[in-house]
Amino acid sequence: MTLRRRQRINDVLRRRQSDLTLIAEQVHKPHNLSAVLRSCDAVGIGTVHAVQPTGGVPTYVSTSASAEKWVDVVVHGDVSGAVRHVKDRGMKVYAAHLSTSAVDYRQVDYVEPCAVLLGNEREGVSGEAAALADVHVLIPMLGMVQSLNVSVAAAVILFEAQRQRLAAGRYDEPALDSDELAALAERWLANRH
Amino acid sequence: MTLRRRQRINDVLRRRQSDLTLIAEQVHKPHNLSAVLRSCDAVGIGTVHAVQPTGGVPTYVSTSASAEKWVDVVVHGDVSGAVRHVKDRGMKVYAAHLSTSAVDYRQVDYVEPCAVLLGNEREGVSGEAAALADVHVLIPMLGMVQSLNVSVAAAVILFEAQRQRLAAGRYDEPALDSDELAALAERWLANRH
Repeated sequence: MTLRRRQRINDVLRRRQSDLTLIAEQVHKPHNLSAVLRSCDAVGIGTVHAVQPTGGVPTYVSTSASAEKWVDVVVHGDVSGAVRHVKDRGMKVYAAHLSTSAVDYRQVDYVEPCAVLLGNEREGVSGEAAALADVHVLIPMLGMVQSLNVSVAAAVILFEAQRQRLAAGRYDEPALDSDELAALAERWLANRH
Repeated sequence: MTLRRRQRINDVLRRRQSDLTLIAEQVHKPHNLSAVLRSCDAVGIGTVHAVQPTGGVPTYVSTSASAEKWVDVVVHGDVSGAVRHVKDRGMKVYAAHLSTSAVDYRQVDYVEPCAVLLGNEREGVSGEAAALADVHVLIPMLGMVQSLNVSVAAAVILFEAQRQRLAAGRYDEPALDSDELAALAERWLANRH
């Protein structure tokens, strides 16, 4: 049983993408953040960045299917700090933001190191975040409603990233080095699930 | 203003897909059903089927971005009735269901007339619904958590359908006939938004 669990954890960790992440700018509703974390886990994102100017740790809905045990959340006090953090690690920032320069989310390259930036439920991405992003992406809305639920928008973009990375074979070889992999495996084994 | 609104409504109705729909089998949480309807609206689905054995009309979260004004919900007492309804209209049923025969959701053809069937938050698609479906589809889960939020799963599959239908030019010509289009336009114009 423990052996099988160890094997499963190793398999998942070998698919973790160290150069793909998500920045959630003030996503307030716990069920939205929980759903975002589940999607991140499913596409191999091991670390997410949350911008929470109030300084508090974001809250989740804990269920048997919750992902906060498997996805680390780094909290930043402002969006510029979060963007700097990912850019320092060589990632481009793709903001889901409907500007005149926005391109269809399917047209950008998610095999490159990148962070998907999403705004909050009401206002979307802030002006500051939009200005810091490398590319603005949009999800084609062919109906009457102009925007998607934030966790839905995150998933639609992240599964396009998964599609591209599956096609590029990026889940076939581990991205984490063996020390990181071993340390995470020990931590995960200690998690009750 | 009214002219512009009429134009916008006509544009949206001309993109409505009469041979693409979704069946929600006992999706209980209002915020989940609301998010599903928003995704349906965004990919051009005008009618959704909800299976509600208790007979009640499903409830939504009404917000400024809610889609229940633009997406009709047909309530069915059991899943076999819902499936019969769509099959009588020539649609195949693709159930999001993790069986041994399930295929990657990206491998099925959504340009064909079809209905995407989703189960509820806890148990997923029922055994009866799985047996009635033509194909079982799965969303690749590369992490520790085994399932997605139901509204997230719906969106991931529906935006793949949108991708395929955009590529096939299916949003370029109206699928509704001119009488249906005119009737819906009148009804929508009467909606306050």
